Amino acid sequence: MAPIRAAIVGYGNLGKSVEKLIAAQPDMELYGIFSRRDQLDTDSPVYPVADFAQHAEHVDVALLCTGSATDIPAQAADFVARTATVDTYDNHRDVARHKAVMDAAAKQAGTVAIVSTGWDPGMFSLNRVLAAAILPGAQQHTFWGPGLSQGHSDALRRIDGVKKAVQYTIPDEAALESARRGEAGELTGKQAHVRRCYVVADESDHARIEEEIRTMPDYFVGYQVEVNFIDEATFDAEHTGMPHGGHVITAGDTGGFNHTVEYTLELDRNPDFTAAVEIAYARAAARLREQGVTGAFTVLEVAPYLLSPTPLDELIARDV
Amino acid sequence: MAPIRAAIVGYGNLGKSVEKLIAAQPDMELYGIFSRRDQLDTDSPVYPVADFAQHAEHVDVALLCTGSATDIPAQAADFVARTATVDTYDNHRDVARHKAVMDAAAKQAGTVAIVSTGWDPGMFSLNRVLAAAILPGAQQHTFWGPGLSQGHSDALRRIDGVKKAVQYTIPDEAALESARRGEAGELTGKQAHVRRCYVVADESDHARIEEEIRTMPDYFVGYQVEVNFIDEATFDAEHTGMPHGGHVITAGDTGGFNHTVEYTLELDRNPDFTAAVEIAYARAAARLREQGVTGAFTVLEVAPYLLSPTPLDELIARDV
Repeated sequence: MAPIRAAIVGYGNLGKSVEKLIAAQPDMELYGIFSRRDQLDTDSPVYPVADFAQHAEHVDVALLCTGSATDIPAQAADFVARTATVDTYDNHRDVARHKAVMDAAAKQAGTVAIVSTGWDPGMFSLNRVLAAAILPGAQQHTFWGPGLSQGHSDALRRIDGVKKAVQYTIPDEAALESARRGEAGELTGKQAHVRRCYVVADESDHARIEEEIRTMPDYFVGYQVEVNFIDEATFDAEHTGMPHGGHVITAGDTGGFNHTVEYTLELDRNPDFTAAVEIAYARAAARLREQGVTGAFTVLEVAPYLLSPTPLDELIARDV
Repeated sequence: MAPIRAAIVGYGNLGKSVEKLIAAQPDMELYGIFSRRDQLDTDSPVYPVADFAQHAEHVDVALLCTGSATDIPAQAADFVARTATVDTYDNHRDVARHKAVMDAAAKQAGTVAIVSTGWDPGMFSLNRVLAAAILPGAQQHTFWGPGLSQGHSDALRRIDGVKKAVQYTIPDEAALESARRGEAGELTGKQAHVRRCYVVADESDHARIEEEIRTMPDYFVGYQVEVNFIDEATFDAEHTGMPHGGHVITAGDTGGFNHTVEYTLELDRNPDFTAAVEIAYARAAARLREQGVTGAFTVLEVAPYLLSPTPLDELIARDV
């Protein structure tokens, strides 16, 4: 079988991770990276994103690695008009609208889109739906972390006197345990998570900065907050990675018997795992297109074997 | 929409769990139980299994709850010749052959079979395939337990002087941790699991019984074995349930970064959870048949949304 020819659109953290991980796929090759920038620090072929249409006939699937805030809503339909696409659009409340737009464009062009892959939305969505389907009436809770929160880290860095700062969101252990027992009820995000901050600042500013953090509305008020001041060398050595992860916990009762389904991710590098999921769904999109399927699909609608480079017969013999 | 009319074939532990849990489904009703026995202790309609063909037109899907050792291989194809079926056939090495037999019968009859549902095979298979597809080259380990092992409990009860006994298989904590770090390598089942025994016997027999357990080939030799002698009242109070569960742990490296995907089940009552999964796939089978699909499928080939009683649009709005 000919390898799947993949293109990357956008070259931020996610695009770079996709580039690295496509090289590890047994059945995929990178056609090139499409970017708004002229110069990228890469040995892969680079093309202006404005020229995508001229290249589309050589691309089986485009992995959209641009931002969810404005790029995906504005541009994704233009790509699926040319070839199959996969994206990591992560605005949960807007997935249905995005899917509808992509569906219309894909059907008109005879292509395929798989939308909102990654891990949340993505693998977490899949696990929420599967576990709830198996245990109707179950309690279900999603916990995020331990993981770096970009938005909260930015908020810390806006405080006067903060030189460097990160914020990790960490599930509360007692909340995890009560969710596993099916006793967490209507747990709020504030009850379920601890916000742990590491801050570099002059010692004379520590008390004021901690006070500003603890009283910052929306971001920190009402949460369990831990503030740790550390020196710059420790910060640079220990807090420049992008770890993340979390848990989807579903606990259902079958007449006095508790059943807990838990899906856990522990990710050393968030964009690498997001890219890994996007690549697996890119494979599925290319295959669906080859099967003559057109339209847009969420991860809920894609048969799992389509994600694997291993043939179905081998999967059944080895993994079922 | 008309409810899905389900039939149960076989009334052992699994069939009883299916009966109980069908009552909790918003979109399903029980047509009846088909059994070889004349009298069953139930208020549901009971019919002779030999008469199934006369009832098949009223049944959208038959949940086969008979044994994997001989019943499923001998009889499953006769049922799918009449209506859609779902089974929990658990002979891992024989799933491909079973699927082929069911596929031929289903295609000839214009029906659908979903084979080897449950949790292992079933949900564990699905998670093995998904996690390995996302992280090619990853290390993957399946751990079983803490859970009651029927075969090992039977082996204990065959020892002279044993009045009552159960054996729980328990994942070794150190093995779990090394699997999560991607450092477990070619871990064997013996290294990964502890066999914990609870035995009721006269005190004068304890030393001999423990020796016989520890030296029993295949079942216990080479394993970490714990033998606990307890009194009969404690046994009856604490060791007559059917707990089970386990972990599928996949750890993959993306150039110096570890990513761990873990799927965990903690089940108070093994047949209830197996039944819950079988029912969700029964829903999928009935829907596939309604869509005009024919043939046999494993869990790897079924789009996840088909398992849920909630419409796809609602799932996308709520869970993605």
